[in-house]
Amino acid sequence: MLVRCFVGPGDRVAYPVPTYTLYDTLVAIQEGEGVTVDYPPDFSLPEALYSHQAALTFLCNPNSPSGTLVPLKQIERLARSVPGVLVVDEAYIDFAQGDGVSALSLIRGLPNLVVLRSFSKSFSLAGMRIGLAFAAEEIIRGMTKVKDSYNLNRLSIVAARAALEDLFWMRRNVERIQKTREKLAQGLFQLGFSVFPSQANFVMARKGGKKLRGLYEELKRRQILVRYFDTPALQDSLRITVGTPQQVKILLREMGMISAAQRLAERR
Amino acid sequence: MLVRCFVGPGDRVAYPVPTYTLYDTLVAIQEGEGVTVDYPPDFSLPEALYSHQAALTFLCNPNSPSGTLVPLKQIERLARSVPGVLVVDEAYIDFAQGDGVSALSLIRGLPNLVVLRSFSKSFSLAGMRIGLAFAAEEIIRGMTKVKDSYNLNRLSIVAARAALEDLFWMRRNVERIQKTREKLAQGLFQLGFSVFPSQANFVMARKGGKKLRGLYEELKRRQILVRYFDTPALQDSLRITVGTPQQVKILLREMGMISAAQRLAERR
Repeated sequence: MLVRCFVGPGDRVAYPVPTYTLYDTLVAIQEGEGVTVDYPPDFSLPEALYSHQAALTFLCNPNSPSGTLVPLKQIERLARSVPGVLVVDEAYIDFAQGDGVSALSLIRGLPNLVVLRSFSKSFSLAGMRIGLAFAAEEIIRGMTKVKDSYNLNRLSIVAARAALEDLFWMRRNVERIQKTREKLAQGLFQLGFSVFPSQANFVMARKGGKKLRGLYEELKRRQILVRYFDTPALQDSLRITVGTPQQVKILLREMGMISAAQRLAERR
Repeated sequence: MLVRCFVGPGDRVAYPVPTYTLYDTLVAIQEGEGVTVDYPPDFSLPEALYSHQAALTFLCNPNSPSGTLVPLKQIERLARSVPGVLVVDEAYIDFAQGDGVSALSLIRGLPNLVVLRSFSKSFSLAGMRIGLAFAAEEIIRGMTKVKDSYNLNRLSIVAARAALEDLFWMRRNVERIQKTREKLAQGLFQLGFSVFPSQANFVMARKGGKKLRGLYEELKRRQILVRYFDTPALQDSLRITVGTPQQVKILLREMGMISAAQRLAERR
């Protein structure tokens, strides 16, 4: 099977949104035509994605900013449905719970599947700018053809190799974050937010229909930085990265105080 | 002035050859149309380069593998003649002798000039994969638009900054290499090679019309690695990187022995 692997001028690239915002930019730089499909409110895989005639389909799984995970069965069905290449971006997969959540196991059976991993999240090596791509031999050969020579510096390679030799450290790191994530989610729920069950190192908290820009700015004034996306689909949401237990405690306390002050102001 | 800065499918990219071999590859990856112009035997700038209607013109200066340098006046004339962007690749410029050899000073007056520098040569930081680009603001703005975010890792940035703060180290390094380069060039001349006056950290040695593949292989057997280019224009040449004084001594000794053995074999 011959797969068209690279996006050139006019090629269609499909992906469900809201998702990692850089896809838009990267598709534009390659002069591709981005085709976005809205996630339903529960962030399950949109049916329309299966029928798009795109040269490339992106799926961030777990998704950012929702933290939600698409099951393996659906990824397999999607890969078999699309006419081009399906790229599953698993930057956050180590934070997901349960076995058999990664699409890595599907690669042998699917010649059009690419799975991406990053050292920037669970391995805490963001400054090294290094990741991994897994795919059938033919796709990797195609990518190698257009890869720049010496595209990685030596120290990043050393760091990534050392990180892979110490998976125990990564897993302990992930376990700590999962525990704190649970506390963060519960705290936000008690503050009246709906919280998606997160499979990533952040949590999306939503106040149905209520614009949260004010809350975001109030937190920023208190030197607490959370992510606010100024788009119609996300302006009632905040994406909050799981910090240390102490940071989460401070965040929840400050959010409680902001909320109490607002109620007081509203009563007047 | 608006300059077309990026090469897309079908765009012409002109450069004199023989030169840095990766230009061919990089132009092919961007689906540009490479247009090469032969250097005359003395490696002076070919007249035909001035009249090419290329979107992009490359000039490696000092050139690899010849080590020769094109004077600033000619670079200025070239930049004013070409309809597109002129990129002067100064990877080896620190090894050139004399003031006023770099095209950096021309940037203010020439909106279509890009000057490239590397930390891989005179700064000995090849493993860091980092370099610099200088150009008028408009060109830099255009490049920034399509630059990947976080395209450099943190440690390479730290290394490059530290290197720039210690130019004294670099200059001392360059002086050592220039001295050894002189010894290497003289030794090769005494062995009957014609040697171009090198302005780089390597020397091109030529035996007019005589194929040097055998010599290259004989040196390799003796664990001495020099560069041999298997092209009609270069098969009578070797590019020899300036090593330590001790390495140069061994190289010249072994070349002398190979040469003596050949003369003996020819007499029989």
